[in-house]
Amino acid sequence: MSPSRVREGRERGPIVAIGGAEDKVGAEAILQTFVRICGGRRARIAVIPTASESGSTGRTYETLFKDLHVEGVRVLSFDSRDACEDQESVAILERASGVFLTGGNQLRLSTTLGGTRVARALRRMNASGAPIAGTSAGAAFLSEHMIAFGEEGPTPRHGMVSLAPGLGLTNRVIVDQHFRQRDRLGRLLTAMAFNPFAIGIGLDEDTAAFIAADDTLDVVGSGSLTVVDASQLEFSSLDAAKQGEPACLIGLRLHILVDGASFDLKSREATAPRAARKEE
Amino acid sequence: MSPSRVREGRERGPIVAIGGAEDKVGAEAILQTFVRICGGRRARIAVIPTASESGSTGRTYETLFKDLHVEGVRVLSFDSRDACEDQESVAILERASGVFLTGGNQLRLSTTLGGTRVARALRRMNASGAPIAGTSAGAAFLSEHMIAFGEEGPTPRHGMVSLAPGLGLTNRVIVDQHFRQRDRLGRLLTAMAFNPFAIGIGLDEDTAAFIAADDTLDVVGSGSLTVVDASQLEFSSLDAAKQGEPACLIGLRLHILVDGASFDLKSREATAPRAARKEE
Repeated sequence: MSPSRVREGRERGPIVAIGGAEDKVGAEAILQTFVRICGGRRARIAVIPTASESGSTGRTYETLFKDLHVEGVRVLSFDSRDACEDQESVAILERASGVFLTGGNQLRLSTTLGGTRVARALRRMNASGAPIAGTSAGAAFLSEHMIAFGEEGPTPRHGMVSLAPGLGLTNRVIVDQHFRQRDRLGRLLTAMAFNPFAIGIGLDEDTAAFIAADDTLDVVGSGSLTVVDASQLEFSSLDAAKQGEPACLIGLRLHILVDGASFDLKSREATAPRAARKEE
Repeated sequence: MSPSRVREGRERGPIVAIGGAEDKVGAEAILQTFVRICGGRRARIAVIPTASESGSTGRTYETLFKDLHVEGVRVLSFDSRDACEDQESVAILERASGVFLTGGNQLRLSTTLGGTRVARALRRMNASGAPIAGTSAGAAFLSEHMIAFGEEGPTPRHGMVSLAPGLGLTNRVIVDQHFRQRDRLGRLLTAMAFNPFAIGIGLDEDTAAFIAADDTLDVVGSGSLTVVDASQLEFSSLDAAKQGEPACLIGLRLHILVDGASFDLKSREATAPRAARKEE
């Protein structure tokens, strides 16, 4: 599975990966930015709470978006593979101008949505220009290769992370979330070491990556976004290391980005926030 | 203060930084290697337990080194600045073929030894060829710039680390220890971001950096050694960030090294362990 083909003359919609625990009172920079790119007051946002075990998660976001003056909010509880084939619900989904996947367990998302009409609709909608956002588990699920689960700790070790196929809106990044809060550098490095083609994106809580159609990524939020670029990797021992052994990785590039900074996923170049840039 | 000048025809002794909690039963790879470079059975090792609050730390290492068949082990309890000026003790210290600084609190080491006859003797001995090792706090103290204390977490933030002058055997590295176990990437990155000239060395427990006279660093032990090379840093917001704010750092290089790997502190090039290297 690779990203849906974007028809000529159209642009892929933004992909918005949020590190979880986004601010829900006060500034709400991330949710406000998402609402803006979905059309502001005229936005029609579909909330998919499939990842969550809690019955109230969908309603929480419905209230949040309504408080941000979005009139058209619909919670679509795709809670079984059967429900994900229901043509009527999918038709409602397809009328949305933007989609928000809540947090929870990303394997619930992939096992429930994977290969169904809902997954196909989401891929088609994004290819036609609709923004698709996910927070926490929702963020992990957006890309082609998804971190399914793993262990904590900053050092990469053989066997500390398990990947699974995600929704596949992009294959340029592998996303990890609650990054600082749950000490996940090791598992992201391990994920990157399998095959250095992708770029690792470690999202702190209340921090988001807005990935535009041209594959530039803008950072929004109060935490930081860690970019792991393994494209210049000179050596990886991951193929030889035994279970639990630390991996030897030589030649990683690392950028720590904050609100206002950006990263070009094609050229792999980072740009500092405009306000913080030194006088030239 | 910069490293003592090495006289012509002489070589600086190895500098051995250990991440703490080195194996004391079984393999003891790190302590065995240290004993070997001090002369093996004919070694005369001085143990300096100044960093430790516990009265038994010196004796513990005395027993360990005796069990490794070292006959000449002396514990020198330089526990006050006065004691560090005692000519008789310093004379005993100077007869040692190698010195071992135990763990504890690196500020106890710097405040007690700093600027005394003992510090001068250690610098002179190392410049004349004697290996000087430190574990945990002892490791932090070895270099010119020492991490005095800091906060946990993987993300660099303004104000999360405090540096202090160390013993100054080398100014090429800044050492952090208990690296994986105490989640210290953020504080090491913050330390490097102040001034990218040095190389950050994050040592896991039971993992050591043996820095030879030619400034090549060999990794020994069961954990990993994280090299942070900030020499290609394109941007740091550390000068503008407010207390506690995450820092924006663009262009860091990162290597995760394991037992048998090495790093050239001059050329900043890493080499994989011989056994793990792919066929060429």
